[in-house]
Amino acid sequence: MSAPVEPQLFRAAMAQLAAAVNIVTTDGPAGRYGITVSAVCSVSDTPASLLVCVNQASRMRALVEANGVLVVNVLTPAHRDLCSRFATPGLGEAERFAASDWQVMANGAPGLEGALVRLACRLVQVCEVGTHAVVMAEVEQVVLGAGDEGAVEGLVYFDRAFHQVPLRAG
Amino acid sequence: MSAPVEPQLFRAAMAQLAAAVNIVTTDGPAGRYGITVSAVCSVSDTPASLLVCVNQASRMRALVEANGVLVVNVLTPAHRDLCSRFATPGLGEAERFAASDWQVMANGAPGLEGALVRLACRLVQVCEVGTHAVVMAEVEQVVLGAGDEGAVEGLVYFDRAFHQVPLRAG
Repeated sequence: MSAPVEPQLFRAAMAQLAAAVNIVTTDGPAGRYGITVSAVCSVSDTPASLLVCVNQASRMRALVEANGVLVVNVLTPAHRDLCSRFATPGLGEAERFAASDWQVMANGAPGLEGALVRLACRLVQVCEVGTHAVVMAEVEQVVLGAGDEGAVEGLVYFDRAFHQVPLRAG
Repeated sequence: MSAPVEPQLFRAAMAQLAAAVNIVTTDGPAGRYGITVSAVCSVSDTPASLLVCVNQASRMRALVEANGVLVVNVLTPAHRDLCSRFATPGLGEAERFAASDWQVMANGAPGLEGALVRLACRLVQVCEVGTHAVVMAEVEQVVLGAGDEGAVEGLVYFDRAFHQVPLRAG
């Protein structure tokens, strides 16, 4: 049995694992909510599935399970402020959604206008791992492209800073 | 019930979810092996945990479960060729590992010299989702920094191309 890895060392290591930045939303009988999440991962294309890691103690965890639906909105460099807003503890639902335009997706949860990609999903399974829940979800609707916003770059979080990476021409 | 999302559309969407590029290795009674994986995700810092998605039908899936250990090696821009090598179907174990320097980690699996981060892990749980297995693992050892190789950038895969993102000075 080795000594546990210190949380601070683990977080320093994970800061060097580059990741996309996303706002994950939900809506339904339990209410609307959304948070910034970098821990989103493609799982399988048959059926189209992805996973999202959320803190067990978070409001988001409870609401996603109660509503049974979520939307992964993949952010562009234009969304830096929005990303911070949805990552601010204690900020209420109304304040989170007020500063941007949302369109209800097929599953009833909010899709972000101008997102690089919007993926509307249905919850399939939750695996609990330590402080976090790994939410497995099946993708039911994909909206590709930022439309009129014309995003040409993706947003990446790496080494505790934002970066932008270009889309290929065409 | 909505129609299933076409695998091709789902893959096009997931191509726009930027991700770090990693070589995940294993070794033990069932043998040594390694593959390129972008689907790696931080889960919890208490205990330090991450997850890796691998194809159910892959050799890697069988070996990781049999050996019970894995190492996530986070790549730098210097590792583009290595990334392709470990993603080549049919390439044997010896050919995969021949072109680079490896150091055995505390759990017995290979750590890549010059990786941005090396995380030696023990398998905790496997969740099966469609064609893929989500391997949950507890991190037992972290080696930060590329040492003498002096990497100053991380490697990102986005829109089906490699990109590099800078580490902050210092």
